Amino acid sequence: MNSISKIVDEAVAAFSTLPGIGKKSALRMVLHLAQQDKKKLEDLYSAVKNISDRLIRCKQCHAYSDSEICAICSDPVRNKQTICVIESIRDLFAIEELKQFRGVYHVLGGLISPIDGMGPENLTIHSLFKRIEMQPITELILAIRPTIEGDTTSYYITRHLNNPSIKISMLARGVSFGSELEYADELTLSRSLLNRTPYIISE
Amino acid sequence: MNSISKIVDEAVAAFSTLPGIGKKSALRMVLHLAQQDKKKLEDLYSAVKNISDRLIRCKQCHAYSDSEICAICSDPVRNKQTICVIESIRDLFAIEELKQFRGVYHVLGGLISPIDGMGPENLTIHSLFKRIEMQPITELILAIRPTIEGDTTSYYITRHLNNPSIKISMLARGVSFGSELEYADELTLSRSLLNRTPYIISE
Repeated sequence: MNSISKIVDEAVAAFSTLPGIGKKSALRMVLHLAQQDKKKLEDLYSAVKNISDRLIRCKQCHAYSDSEICAICSDPVRNKQTICVIESIRDLFAIEELKQFRGVYHVLGGLISPIDGMGPENLTIHSLFKRIEMQPITELILAIRPTIEGDTTSYYITRHLNNPSIKISMLARGVSFGSELEYADELTLSRSLLNRTPYIISE
Repeated sequence: MNSISKIVDEAVAAFSTLPGIGKKSALRMVLHLAQQDKKKLEDLYSAVKNISDRLIRCKQCHAYSDSEICAICSDPVRNKQTICVIESIRDLFAIEELKQFRGVYHVLGGLISPIDGMGPENLTIHSLFKRIEMQPITELILAIRPTIEGDTTSYYITRHLNNPSIKISMLARGVSFGSELEYADELTLSRSLLNRTPYIISE
């Protein structure tokens, strides 16, 4: 293809590095942007510049934050005694979306995975233990995905937590809502049967 | 949803204005960017800044350009006597992708559409006529979409072009490759039948 503009080419290259964006979508974005007024373009590049220059990690929970302590950790309404331990900040957004959880978070930044060279020292697990030493915590919710790495991480945290007064819970596991039993994997189905719960009639 | 970071929120808002990007994809992009190194973020915001500050229109064909005359118009290899008239720069990229056309372009910037208040004076039609007066043009390819607005625009250009020596052509119309006849619209099918072409055995 004859390059018509280096500026367009470079912009397409930059936008195609975004997740889920191929060359065609990137070109579509760039041509769209080229038609926008300066104000909109300014919003976009100052957004990117702010991510680069001003976005930091919360010292307490390690989520993205505009200040040393994030908006959730410093919110007086949130229950600081319940910590929801999650793998990544994406999980935080997914849980916040539910508008249900009123505690605080701790972002591990990954899961223990010896194959990938990820040990507890690469995660924020020790910062979690320190946090528990410093503050009165009553419950730790391990909202970690049900995989080998997830289970290893949950196990590690549980084993190394020297505080029997803290209640440790994990997300319920079983068949998903709306799923068809015949397509559920064996492990999920067999565990759902083993861990069956009493039937409750909701009125 | 509890806002965790104003920077993240603003970035999500800016990215959701991109075509085809909803709030979820925008958040995914922002969280992805937050994990990138400064160099990548710099590439992205200088790309946006360049679109805003440095990208201009070619004085001749009105495509996006880094300089007064675009790379295609100033390419010595391209045939300046054949002008392909198109509605938008997107069409230019679609045709360039074919690596087949070796002439130059003229971007109209829209189509004549009285309902939308778009007249010939809102487009670059007069600049096209001036271009034809100044340079020896042999063919004008009207690569304009087959709609009422497109046909009106093609008709206007053809009627107002005071130069009988210029050959005017348009894109072939008919059933698309791979399409099923029973699903083709009536107008397309009926015209394909009327304008049938001789069957040629390619060996």
